[in-house]
Amino acid sequence: MSITPAQVMCKIRVVLLSGGSGSRLWPLSNSTRSKQFIKFLKSPNGGLESMCQRVVRQLIASGIAFDITIVTGKSQVETILNQVGPQVDVIAEPERRDTFPAIAFAVSYLALKKKCDKDDVVVVMPIDSFVEDDYFKTIGKIGDVVVSNIANIVLIGIYPESPSKKFGYILPEKGLYGQPSRILSFKEKPDKEEAQRLIENGALWNAGVFAFKAGYMLKILSRYISFDSFSDMGNKYSMLPKKSFDFEILEKESSVAVLPFKGKWKDIGTWNSLSEEIENSTIGNVLLADSTDTSVVNELDIPLVCVGAKNLIIAASFDGIFVGDKEKSVFLKDYIGRLGGDLRPMYEERRFGECRVLSYCKYEDGSEEVTRFVRFNNDAFSSRQRRLCCDVILTFVHGEGVLTLNDKAINVKKGDVVKINAGEKYALKSTRSLQIVEVQIGAKLTDDAF
Amino acid sequence: MSITPAQVMCKIRVVLLSGGSGSRLWPLSNSTRSKQFIKFLKSPNGGLESMCQRVVRQLIASGIAFDITIVTGKSQVETILNQVGPQVDVIAEPERRDTFPAIAFAVSYLALKKKCDKDDVVVVMPIDSFVEDDYFKTIGKIGDVVVSNIANIVLIGIYPESPSKKFGYILPEKGLYGQPSRILSFKEKPDKEEAQRLIENGALWNAGVFAFKAGYMLKILSRYISFDSFSDMGNKYSMLPKKSFDFEILEKESSVAVLPFKGKWKDIGTWNSLSEEIENSTIGNVLLADSTDTSVVNELDIPLVCVGAKNLIIAASFDGIFVGDKEKSVFLKDYIGRLGGDLRPMYEERRFGECRVLSYCKYEDGSEEVTRFVRFNNDAFSSRQRRLCCDVILTFVHGEGVLTLNDKAINVKKGDVVKINAGEKYALKSTRSLQIVEVQIGAKLTDDAF
Repeated sequence: MSITPAQVMCKIRVVLLSGGSGSRLWPLSNSTRSKQFIKFLKSPNGGLESMCQRVVRQLIASGIAFDITIVTGKSQVETILNQVGPQVDVIAEPERRDTFPAIAFAVSYLALKKKCDKDDVVVVMPIDSFVEDDYFKTIGKIGDVVVSNIANIVLIGIYPESPSKKFGYILPEKGLYGQPSRILSFKEKPDKEEAQRLIENGALWNAGVFAFKAGYMLKILSRYISFDSFSDMGNKYSMLPKKSFDFEILEKESSVAVLPFKGKWKDIGTWNSLSEEIENSTIGNVLLADSTDTSVVNELDIPLVCVGAKNLIIAASFDGIFVGDKEKSVFLKDYIGRLGGDLRPMYEERRFGECRVLSYCKYEDGSEEVTRFVRFNNDAFSSRQRRLCCDVILTFVHGEGVLTLNDKAINVKKGDVVKINAGEKYALKSTRSLQIVEVQIGAKLTDDAF
Repeated sequence: MSITPAQVMCKIRVVLLSGGSGSRLWPLSNSTRSKQFIKFLKSPNGGLESMCQRVVRQLIASGIAFDITIVTGKSQVETILNQVGPQVDVIAEPERRDTFPAIAFAVSYLALKKKCDKDDVVVVMPIDSFVEDDYFKTIGKIGDVVVSNIANIVLIGIYPESPSKKFGYILPEKGLYGQPSRILSFKEKPDKEEAQRLIENGALWNAGVFAFKAGYMLKILSRYISFDSFSDMGNKYSMLPKKSFDFEILEKESSVAVLPFKGKWKDIGTWNSLSEEIENSTIGNVLLADSTDTSVVNELDIPLVCVGAKNLIIAASFDGIFVGDKEKSVFLKDYIGRLGGDLRPMYEERRFGECRVLSYCKYEDGSEEVTRFVRFNNDAFSSRQRRLCCDVILTFVHGEGVLTLNDKAINVKKGDVVKINAGEKYALKSTRSLQIVEVQIGAKLTDDAF
């Protein structure tokens, strides 16, 4: 997959890193839905979009990318395919390690699967970069800086707004706006006083963007493992150190430059920072009355009524409900940890559409029951035929499709009911907006019929 | 149905009036679940009980009642049967009118169905009387007062705690504790100044309890309609004026006495007053942290996390979510009115168990889909065989039972699936804790398969 080459300035191969669990934005985030997949931002078409959808849209509109590859863990693949579908390549790490192995994996993919040139510029950036469109002009320029051989690795540095303790700082030789500089030193999350001193000396925030030539990274990688195909690389993935790119590569590299950017750049990691970006103070079926400084997101079908609230964040999803003081919501992660137990996601985006757990019961005799609502996109496939370890009853409530049951194709439509016994294998294809109520009997919540 | 006669002092026939819609305690109350049915009170067995269950339990424990009859509207019958089951008689008014017709209906039932004596004492009280056990000693004494012919109607008067504007006041001739007095005058909801003056003159709050001999009420009723059976009375019910007992009878009766009660007596009608009675500040799957003066009730299966709240009421049910400042929550009724639209209850107690709407979709082609989880009590019947106007798919997920389909009995158990087509008639009996996922296709939310 590649994006209209005519618009390309210097063949930037963009790699987006998508990770994160997501308890800090619970209940909208869960183990398969990290913050970058929550649709809370106003999109140009008037609807809502996620940070993932926004950054892919901005990248494509900027015309700077020859292609976009998202590297992620297995649990996020289906969500990414559903959100940004065929516009990007999605590759899943064989196992979750850290940013150095993930970046190495993506560059191997570009070299061995996409056949990129060793002089092609690779720009790695976090998928949850919440920035304005002009940020991508600087990303575009970074390609020229790499091509000009000023340094082996080029970073983006952000002019700091405040002596924040939560970012890494880059101290450049000089910090002229729009000009690249060699880097004197790095400082990860300094205290406030040190941050203030760094800023006075011209330090910049590290935006987590790394640009280099593909060949540079492949050469480094050859010091760790040798491989002759992308699948061979995958098999040897566990031999790579579980270290960050910053620690394993950047801090050991003497030839590093930074390109400064002055403009809106924001880390949306907590409810408090997210609420500032919700354009209307409510999303979903919400009645907010007589309240001040309060943001409400309701993803449930039932109404949420809020009266007389002050400085609150309220969020409801199929996974849970959160009501919190804005400042105190930054500690949400600690509280979610306390919930403990089996926090299996109740809502999941899948490549073919979405699944919602409607009810779950565990009975005294140890048997379990799970009922899910499964919505297929208009013309979508579930994965290949699978065998299940429990009985499944599918009630087709909308649309049309084809059920493949033990290699036999059966047309299905609204009103049909099919019982599939444990051990049989099946797959589904939607030909017209298939919607299904699926009841699993004797299931464990870890089972999955699709 | 009668309660162990050995304990009875003077054959009090208790009539509990159960009415009310319930938007003031939304989302725990809805059109079938009024405040008296919400289980938020700690019961002696360590679980939770509703005001309805509490008052019936207290009445039975007090030993003062020969029998208990609950008169209500059709929409509440199933809930009452499920909550206080065979301990009481439940009768449904042919149509909702007001307290005079409802009380007349109940007394006709006692006379014509239960064959009570005309000298039997009838005590009418609101089902949402939230009182301590010693209140029922006063209720017991009221029987003696009626028998002694001091007055035709005897009321309970409460020593006021404050010059509240929301109660009716009774001015007695004298207010000696424990002694009945003739009544000088009534005053409904005075302003604060008048309430203060009334209290200084010895006035009492009207507890809404009326006691009289059955024959007294039957004689009054004969002035309105004549009937020779209880069903005949039902047919003529609409001929009775739609007036309150206070207006139609009490205020025109010169022979009225009041028996004072000093003790806890509380009107729980809003979230604010209810929250004071929640013994623990949370009910259900709730994590409440770093908060003050906050009560949380969560009836959903998903967790509710609240951090840093102050003076809030939070309630979540299958019908909706409410977050409100305690003082402002008294205006909730107005806001619920604004939600408008189709606020069909998503959760309903039924005589056989309970029903929850899991999902509801209306499609562009006008067709609808409703999925419900239906839980039968261990050994319970649904209503008689019914014909449906939509196709229904029943997936039996737990227990065992008997399905009667077009007059034919079929044993059903966990794992079975039955599709019933529109127009067929069916009924269900649970023989062991039947649980069903029911999918209605082409249904309207007003349809009901049970």
